[in-house]
This record gives sequence, C-alpha cells and structure tokens, in this order.
Amino acid sequence: MSQVEGRNPVLEAVRGRLADRVLVDEDSKSARKIEEIVDLARRTGIHVEFVRRRELDRISKTKHHQGVLAFIVRPAYTSIEEVLSGVEGDVCVVVLDRVQDPMNLGSVLRTSEATGVNAVVIPRRGSVGLTPAVRRVAMGGDVYVPVVRERSFRVLRSLREEGVRVVGVDPSGGVDYYDERLTGSVVFVLGGEGGGLSQQMLDKCDVVVRIPMAGRLDSLNVGVAAAVVLYERVRQLSVS
Amino acid sequence: MSQVEGRNPVLEAVRGRLADRVLVDEDSKSARKIEEIVDLARRTGIHVEFVRRRELDRISKTKHHQGVLAFIVRPAYTSIEEVLSGVEGDVCVVVLDRVQDPMNLGSVLRTSEATGVNAVVIPRRGSVGLTPAVRRVAMGGDVYVPVVRERSFRVLRSLREEGVRVVGVDPSGGVDYYDERLTGSVVFVLGGEGGGLSQQMLDKCDVVVRIPMAGRLDSLNVGVAAAVVLYERVRQLSVS
Repeated sequence: MSQVEGRNPVLEAVRGRLADRVLVDEDSKSARKIEEIVDLARRTGIHVEFVRRRELDRISKTKHHQGVLAFIVRPAYTSIEEVLSGVEGDVCVVVLDRVQDPMNLGSVLRTSEATGVNAVVIPRRGSVGLTPAVRRVAMGGDVYVPVVRERSFRVLRSLREEGVRVVGVDPSGGVDYYDERLTGSVVFVLGGEGGGLSQQMLDKCDVVVRIPMAGRLDSLNVGVAAAVVLYERVRQLSVS
Repeated sequence: MSQVEGRNPVLEAVRGRLADRVLVDEDSKSARKIEEIVDLARRTGIHVEFVRRRELDRISKTKHHQGVLAFIVRPAYTSIEEVLSGVEGDVCVVVLDRVQDPMNLGSVLRTSEATGVNAVVIPRRGSVGLTPAVRRVAMGGDVYVPVVRERSFRVLRSLREEGVRVVGVDPSGGVDYYDERLTGSVVFVLGGEGGGLSQQMLDKCDVVVRIPMAGRLDSLNVGVAAAVVLYERVRQLSVS
C-alpha cells in the first residue's frame, strides 16, 4: 500500500476515490482544507481517523504531511498493455529514461495529468519510483495518470507495434519541436538529468526533436522539457 | 558576496567570467568535470584553491556541493531601469509574484536564460531570493539572467511607461495562451504556488491568459507555467 501526504495531494486522492483511509492530525482538523478533505472523505465512504501529530510524524515519509496523509488503494504501477487496451482514439505516452530527481518525475506527472497523457513510463533501472516525495510534487497527478514501470525498450516495441510514433526529445535533435507534427498517437522519450538520451535510445526514435536554446546553457530541466512538448501537442490539437 | 555550488553551476559561473574564486575538494580534483572547471578557471585568470572536503562542507550552504563551489562577483540584483537601458529592440520580462519554492525560482531562471528573457523580477516581500538552493536548480541561469528585486507594482508601472504589454498567466484568464499574440515587448506575470495572482495584480494586466488543463487538477507548477508561455513566445517569434 502506498501513501500520499500533504493537503492538496490528499484532497486529490480523496476526490479521485483512490484513498482507502485518511489520517488527520487532531490539532489541525479545523484548518479549512483539512475540513474539506474530512467532509468529502466521509461523504464518499472513506475512513477518517484522527491521530496525534507525533503519530503522523512517525508514519510520514516526506516529513511535510501538513497534518494529513492518506493510504492509496490503487496498485502503484500498471502495464503498457493495460493502458493501451483502455484507450480509444489517439494515445499519448511519456517515457522517462533514467530520471532520478523526484522533483522532475513529480513535475512530469502533474503536467501529464493536465495535458491528457495516457501513461508515464519509468524504467525499473536507474529511475526514481513513485516515492512520497514524488507524489508531493505531483500534486495528485500521480493519482490520475497510470504509471508503468517496465524496460523502456520493451515499452517502445509494444507501442511501435500499435503504430505509435516514437518522438525523442534531445538537444541532438535535427528539428525544432514546433516544426514537427506532434498530434496523432505519440510517445515522447526524454532522458535523465544531464546525460540526455543514449545513442541506443536515439536509434529507436522515429524522429528526434530539439527545444531551441537561445542562451549559453545546454539543456532544460526534464520536467520543463516535457511540459514544452506536451503543451505544443495540445496547441497543435487545438488548431487541427 | 554570493556563492554557487555543484559542478554544472560552477562551470557556468566560470564560463561567464562571473566567478571570483573557486574552491575545490582536493579529493575530487581528478573528476572529469572538475578538471574542466579548473582548466578553464586558470586560463581565464580565476583563482582556484584546493581545500579539504571538510572545509567545503563547512562553507557549503546547500550540502550538495559535489566537490566544488565558487564565489560570485556580480552584484546579485539589478534595477529594472538598468535592464531596460541595456536592451535594444523588444524586451521580455518575467515577474514572479510570491514564489516561495526555491525549485520554482531556479527552474524559471534556467528556462528564462534559454528563452532570451531580459530580466526576472522577484518582489522583496513574500518571495524567495537568490539562495544557494535556487542557484543550484538554475544551473547557471541565475548567472546570466539579471534578477530585479523590487515591488511588482512599481516594476509594472515602469514597464508600462515603456510600452511593454502586461500579460498575466492565471487559471482565471479569458483566453488560451496560444490564441494570444505573445511577441513584441511583453512582461509575463505569474503567481505563487497555489494562490495564483491577486485581484489587484490581475487588474494591472492588459490581458490574462490561461493554460488549458485537460484533467482534474487546477493549476501547473509555476516553473512549468512560465516555460509553457515563454516557449510559445519563442515559437511565435520563429513563425513571425
């Protein structure tokens, strides 16, 4: 069983009917947002328990619980096959290769939720998983967006077989991202902090796009890079 | 005197000739990136000093110095008048109102450098400043992008007088950001985590754009929101 911590993440988990049980610090129960959580949880049949702050501190993994945490019933990870079988129409997937910073994964999950991404793939090897720190930054994005924890190459093969176009996002790309069609069924592949995509991964891409850099820095934060291409897809869909 | 910490931030500070003195952990000096820093610093006349790791740990403010830190000579903040007097052609400024999370400010500085932003404004009240944690995330963006620490309203008044259009970015906006012209001289105003822009601030905007949200969450991370509008400006400039 996994857990989410902090007022906004717990509120999202309760809204999404994904919380099994909510623990509230008894001294924080009159805070406006916590009242909202407790109300909604009760109305939707989610068990609420008031505990001492000390108890919450003990259970908390992030140490930023803000007086509330929730246990989540949804299995933390799913498979790419399950994701594909549930999608009608075009699919949009994000593969994060060797992203180790919890801030980046959390940020990608939040933006993915906002842009209608069907799944985020994080390989088992060399990537951070759905830790409480990631969930805190995701602000609930992790609750709504299915996360697949499988080898990138296997996932890309499955997606290709379904006709999904593989778009790498890397400073080595030959075309600016806004000059490439990003609509239709697409999987965006982004590399970890610093290193970018490996040559082996670049070879698997149908096209590699780059995000133009006007200054002296080489690359963007991976959470930012994902947002830039995902919102360009949203923009292109709005005009198509 | 302020300082930057970590291999990439220090490398950027040395490249930009902004470092006054570099301190290197004597046990890390054969790491590839640190060798690069030391080489470049020596060639450009920047003083390099080898110290014990313990000494570096003591001076470090982030506790993630990766064996190297640098002291910076540039004054940490500038004024909006100074920024405007140095710009020829269109100006692009970002105002961050009550952004307290160092990750967000660091991320905005990095993206601002990459998109040719002329200055980032952080009000003195209620906003995080150029702390070592911010500089680490900025990856050198803080070294190249002038930072103004003044009251938002005063800065907006000065910019308006110069004919700069004030574009608020807020969930309450009446138009999708990609349907609005973002070229020409523009100042983007973004609100702090959670709260969005105050009514008083919204009233100062010539237009308020929103970033469409496909899912159930209300808003994006402010670092991501800034990147989305700044790169839409880059895209519009590329086609205009």
